[in-house]
Amino acid sequence: MYRTHTCGELRITNINQQVTLAGWVQRIRDLGAMTFIDLRDRYGITQLVAYNNAAEDTLKTIRELGREFVVQVNGTVRERSSKNVNIPTGEIEIDINSVTVLNASIIPPFTIQDDTDGGDELRMKYRYLDLRRNAVKQNIELRHKMAQEVRKYFDEKGFLEIETPVLMKSTPEGARDFVVPSRLNPGTFYALPQSPQTFKQILMVAGYDRYFQIVKCFRDEDLRADRQPEFTQIDCEMSFVEQEDILNTFEGMLKHLFKKIKGVDFDNPFLRMTFEEAMNNYGNDKPDLRFDMKIKEITNLVKGIGFSIFDQANYIGGICATGAADFSRKQIDELTEWVKRPQIGAKGLIYIRFGADGIKSSIDKFFSTDKLAEIGKTFDAKTGDMVFILVGDKKKTLGQLSELRLEMGSRLGLRDKNTFVPLWVIDFPLFEWDEETQRFYAMHHPFTSPKPEDIAFFESDPGNVRANAYDCVVNGVELGGGSIRIHDQQLQQKMFKVLGFSKEQAEYQFGFIMNAFTYGAPPHGGIAFGFDRLVSMFAGLDSIRDVIAFPKNNSGRDMMIDSPSVISDDQLKELNLKVELKTEK
Amino acid sequence: MYRTHTCGELRITNINQQVTLAGWVQRIRDLGAMTFIDLRDRYGITQLVAYNNAAEDTLKTIRELGREFVVQVNGTVRERSSKNVNIPTGEIEIDINSVTVLNASIIPPFTIQDDTDGGDELRMKYRYLDLRRNAVKQNIELRHKMAQEVRKYFDEKGFLEIETPVLMKSTPEGARDFVVPSRLNPGTFYALPQSPQTFKQILMVAGYDRYFQIVKCFRDEDLRADRQPEFTQIDCEMSFVEQEDILNTFEGMLKHLFKKIKGVDFDNPFLRMTFEEAMNNYGNDKPDLRFDMKIKEITNLVKGIGFSIFDQANYIGGICATGAADFSRKQIDELTEWVKRPQIGAKGLIYIRFGADGIKSSIDKFFSTDKLAEIGKTFDAKTGDMVFILVGDKKKTLGQLSELRLEMGSRLGLRDKNTFVPLWVIDFPLFEWDEETQRFYAMHHPFTSPKPEDIAFFESDPGNVRANAYDCVVNGVELGGGSIRIHDQQLQQKMFKVLGFSKEQAEYQFGFIMNAFTYGAPPHGGIAFGFDRLVSMFAGLDSIRDVIAFPKNNSGRDMMIDSPSVISDDQLKELNLKVELKTEK
Repeated sequence: MYRTHTCGELRITNINQQVTLAGWVQRIRDLGAMTFIDLRDRYGITQLVAYNNAAEDTLKTIRELGREFVVQVNGTVRERSSKNVNIPTGEIEIDINSVTVLNASIIPPFTIQDDTDGGDELRMKYRYLDLRRNAVKQNIELRHKMAQEVRKYFDEKGFLEIETPVLMKSTPEGARDFVVPSRLNPGTFYALPQSPQTFKQILMVAGYDRYFQIVKCFRDEDLRADRQPEFTQIDCEMSFVEQEDILNTFEGMLKHLFKKIKGVDFDNPFLRMTFEEAMNNYGNDKPDLRFDMKIKEITNLVKGIGFSIFDQANYIGGICATGAADFSRKQIDELTEWVKRPQIGAKGLIYIRFGADGIKSSIDKFFSTDKLAEIGKTFDAKTGDMVFILVGDKKKTLGQLSELRLEMGSRLGLRDKNTFVPLWVIDFPLFEWDEETQRFYAMHHPFTSPKPEDIAFFESDPGNVRANAYDCVVNGVELGGGSIRIHDQQLQQKMFKVLGFSKEQAEYQFGFIMNAFTYGAPPHGGIAFGFDRLVSMFAGLDSIRDVIAFPKNNSGRDMMIDSPSVISDDQLKELNLKVELKTEK
Repeated sequence: MYRTHTCGELRITNINQQVTLAGWVQRIRDLGAMTFIDLRDRYGITQLVAYNNAAEDTLKTIRELGREFVVQVNGTVRERSSKNVNIPTGEIEIDINSVTVLNASIIPPFTIQDDTDGGDELRMKYRYLDLRRNAVKQNIELRHKMAQEVRKYFDEKGFLEIETPVLMKSTPEGARDFVVPSRLNPGTFYALPQSPQTFKQILMVAGYDRYFQIVKCFRDEDLRADRQPEFTQIDCEMSFVEQEDILNTFEGMLKHLFKKIKGVDFDNPFLRMTFEEAMNNYGNDKPDLRFDMKIKEITNLVKGIGFSIFDQANYIGGICATGAADFSRKQIDELTEWVKRPQIGAKGLIYIRFGADGIKSSIDKFFSTDKLAEIGKTFDAKTGDMVFILVGDKKKTLGQLSELRLEMGSRLGLRDKNTFVPLWVIDFPLFEWDEETQRFYAMHHPFTSPKPEDIAFFESDPGNVRANAYDCVVNGVELGGGSIRIHDQQLQQKMFKVLGFSKEQAEYQFGFIMNAFTYGAPPHGGIAFGFDRLVSMFAGLDSIRDVIAFPKNNSGRDMMIDSPSVISDDQLKELNLKVELKTEK
């Protein structure tokens, strides 16, 4: 061992002990009579001091040190004359006896500090230096701790962690698969799992009634901010359960994590809200409930009064921004531009200000003060508030109002990162109609069970069938989702029929699981949580990138190892493959 | 919840309770006056009983039940008149009140029992039924438990589990990579990791001084029994340590597992043996030390006496099979055929029998009894023993003696699966000379550190440089191996030179890690354990297949999901790939 203690370990109680430390040089301050060195390792920083009456070779070595040199130091723990109360080792320093350079370092391309001067690209290329920064290290430690706690929780509840294959089979339904050519089976391919969905259902058929796995999944998706081609899920499945059992079990997991990691207690059960309520009140199936500001529809109240914009709209709705009456003309103009950006897509923004000096609005010409007050009443608007109204097609406008609501929440400081409001969104529709292809798609996946009471109109009115499906949402972020699965073969066949599968297609794509279901499939259901997302929420980050040790950039490239890369002709030949690049871009 | 208790839970203390169970029908016995049903779930088997005065619909349902039907049963716990002491629930039975079929089953293709009638292929195709068998289930449960204990041990020792990428970069050195075409970066490929070797070393450079990961690794190797294209490793790395620290830390892990899982205590440190000793005494770098039977060389003792077979050999050696003097002529003949099989490749087998009636041997014609006794003395042979001798080229003959030794150990019952003898094999050679390509290869990998005292003849006599490399061997099975790594750039460059790399090649293949080493790499080293192998040893199995939930067969095929499979032309086109099958086989 190159050290007796770590750089985060020594305290005032260690005074006068001979110790050996090893670590990286964080900072050197040569004060003439003495030189201070901050030595850093994973556990902290310890101050070293060498006086200029030290041995000449020690002083020589110290003079040659640079940032990020790896050194081993032997010395005596002393009480500091000027203590640093900000770090745990701040009361002591090491009086250097001898120092050995274990490895030199060239000058790093950016500073190894919380507020580094390194840009995103540089930090990714030199990820090993970025990972030395405390800000990143804390996330990696948090991730480890959360994984441990997840496993502890499930182990105690009798769940088994079972590894499912990484080399599995490509299924055309769903997102795009990454594929892996098989050399031993020429012309064929494995696929990397988008999720272990079929395998975990197979495990239920096999009788392993409580399964979980913290598992890598893969999706070959197009560029999009904050997506990674490989990501990690907490994947779970249970047998002989109903929806209520699943919600309770996994609510328990989140409560356990919040308690153990953040010290946050949730005394009450998580809120529950139907998909319909969520869409109507928040325009969104993952509402941020850290603040209220519900969307209200006022179509019937204001339509047909002679204001053409309202008269032509099939939906008129708005939100009441509490305390926003003091927004200036300029702020409102800027907000109007904000909702008109293509990402939001509104035509304009109508406001009604409930100021101390009375009600003012952008539609004063068309509506009497009484009418405006009546609108205000719908929103429960008080003096000091501002109501914002958007109009148009119902679905689109609700989406725009949802964005506006979140934006106002942020602007009004209502989205504190240390407040957590968890929520189950339930009763999702089973199917989604796709205008383009003129067919129904499974909103979750084809194995999701309808609500028993809705099976009656399964074929006559598929669009209104609700699923036993649920999402876990915290602060507007979907952390996980799942469903009770179909375990009845006949119902499964009905499902495939509504989805437009021929019997042959269903057999080709899902034959092995359909076959498994004929040998005694128990009632079962499950859920999967996005582990990267969960850790990033606990870390108070907006992006998942910094909770992943070696993330890829938005083109799916690993900047550090420079991958993906070309492979040799020999490799291609062995795989019976030829690369044929398209000539046009 | 479909049940109040599991099928493994009820005891005599539960008598007269109303309970609901759910599970699979294992067995039905209709005795006329009553019908017994064994109901099975993950937790055990509970006997149900229905008397023929039960409600008619209950009796009707029961009459229609078949093996592997999934049922829910409500009833009362009763004390059995005839108790079964072999199962934990054997004192009670459930007097059926009502029974519901949750799902029917067609007749399974093999019996769901410990001694199933299903062949290997059938069991793989219907793996979900095979997994229901107790014998397989126990392995899956053991695997979960061992993974939990490994994580617990490392967590307590301050190790962080850090996920390294699955989509990484192909490196031509080593075994064959599986590759993954990148759609977003046309013409380029990711590779699946054969091990996270470079990433874990990068993590050491990044300052994470205690890393571990239970991680999937991939090797595209040719067919070979008991290999899987995807396998699981316990991958570990530490900084600021010497070999001794590593051995102690991971010996600790194994001791923890043996204690927690098998209840086996190792009071003493594991044995240690140099590679050279292992090769000379056991003909093998992973000796099975559950029995002694060391190989002894007798070349000098018996060569040049006029027995041409000995006189022509450059190595003569043997083993003493304790208590094997009663082997019959027929047994010896059979053993002779055994060593002459191509897998072993010996030319013949010489024996010296130390019987109660004197010394007899197959070389009586050439050696006096005194000489035979002298040979016997070398082997410490006692009356009742038998010495077996093989001759030939040293390396080959040692290999053959190693096989013979293991075979004799098995035949003499010296290899008990419940006895565990762990061992560290140390001081491996750094390089291996390859006759075919006329160059040195790294015996472990190019980052393995030589012993400091051997660096002097690094370039003059590479073949004799020993490495700071070590293998962990239990009962003749290599469970893990690792090394102290090179952290000095200049030494690393010397290494590449001996391995015949040009500077450009080294840069192209290992540039990113060489580059990382210029920014302050700490001294570090690590180890990786084969987790599948470890679990299979704890399970007392010879194969790793049954400790993997969904293994592939020897052609790398998943028989259950029928993978790998062809993918669509659209998929190939998107990936800029064309399949070009070779016309000849």
